[in-house]
Amino acid sequence: MSFSPLVEQLMDALRVLPGVGPRTAQRMAMHLLERNREGGERLAGVLREAVERVGYCQRCRTLTEEPLCTLCQSPRRDDRLLCVVESPADMLAMEEAGGYQGRYFVLHGHLSPLDGIGPEDIGLDQLEAIIAEGKVEEVVLATNPTVEGEATAHYIATQIEAHGARLSRLAYGVPMGGELEYVDGGTLSRAFSGRLPFAGE
Amino acid sequence: MSFSPLVEQLMDALRVLPGVGPRTAQRMAMHLLERNREGGERLAGVLREAVERVGYCQRCRTLTEEPLCTLCQSPRRDDRLLCVVESPADMLAMEEAGGYQGRYFVLHGHLSPLDGIGPEDIGLDQLEAIIAEGKVEEVVLATNPTVEGEATAHYIATQIEAHGARLSRLAYGVPMGGELEYVDGGTLSRAFSGRLPFAGE
Repeated sequence: MSFSPLVEQLMDALRVLPGVGPRTAQRMAMHLLERNREGGERLAGVLREAVERVGYCQRCRTLTEEPLCTLCQSPRRDDRLLCVVESPADMLAMEEAGGYQGRYFVLHGHLSPLDGIGPEDIGLDQLEAIIAEGKVEEVVLATNPTVEGEATAHYIATQIEAHGARLSRLAYGVPMGGELEYVDGGTLSRAFSGRLPFAGE
Repeated sequence: MSFSPLVEQLMDALRVLPGVGPRTAQRMAMHLLERNREGGERLAGVLREAVERVGYCQRCRTLTEEPLCTLCQSPRRDDRLLCVVESPADMLAMEEAGGYQGRYFVLHGHLSPLDGIGPEDIGLDQLEAIIAEGKVEEVVLATNPTVEGEATAHYIATQIEAHGARLSRLAYGVPMGGELEYVDGGTLSRAFSGRLPFAGE
């Protein structure tokens, strides 16, 4: 025996959510049907609308339902700095960290030839067009510090260096507030080889 | 800065799901918008349909989009046994445990006077009407072994004992396969006072 077909379909559909297995999907379906139908109705509506209307910002490619995102529309950001990130979540993390006043460009992934993801799929033609405008003086390659992120950063560097913009990469090193004991070896040796002169207090 | 209004609304709407906080909601929204719009579209559709169409079985009150659930429609179940549970999930757990061949009745909760949940809210008028038909010989009160579940079982017992059906309750004791060391004190003392003659092998 199982639940009714429609309830089973709902549990099945909920499993598209990351980290949701059969037990969690059942708990979610029961919660929505037994205790919060109004919330379920609202979620269904917003989800449909978001899936249909949210697209990419025409300039930086972040997720937005407008042609241009708020950040690209803002006249207060510095056009001379462009930070290239893999995802809208990375962009938000940079913004929440604070301090950066330039523009962004969102790749929505990284190069992955084996999965058929080439330069156009991550918008590199569009990125090059922005650099070619000549306003950008420095491109911060803030892709993930992973093999794929590094490879993508190198590819981008090769592609745009002819345009004369300075290229930089986020610093590698030990994370703030952590304990050395728990930092992985790769990070630690990078931090050691990139050690800085001690400035004192 | 934050995501666009519609993306923020989506993250907010996802938080109606149990156990989903702001970080998980963001991860879910990003996953749906970046990697699985088709799954998101399907979830939106099924969720709306389920919230609108899934109701209670006219007889046993479990969740179903039909007037009568499959189990109530089945001629193969024993009408002389009725198992009263708090939720459709409890009913499914009993079915998955196997062995029970009777009918069910789903309360969708328990009595909770302080929250304004009285006998009619958990369908006790309907339960009494079923018992009054005279076919049920034994009612298994399988409400949760909690203070509220016990109180609800007692209330039901008082309400229906006049109809002459036998009343029973699930056995209390140590769970199978566990280690005594990790069984809570309340369960252990219940299991001790309800100890059974040793049958040997």
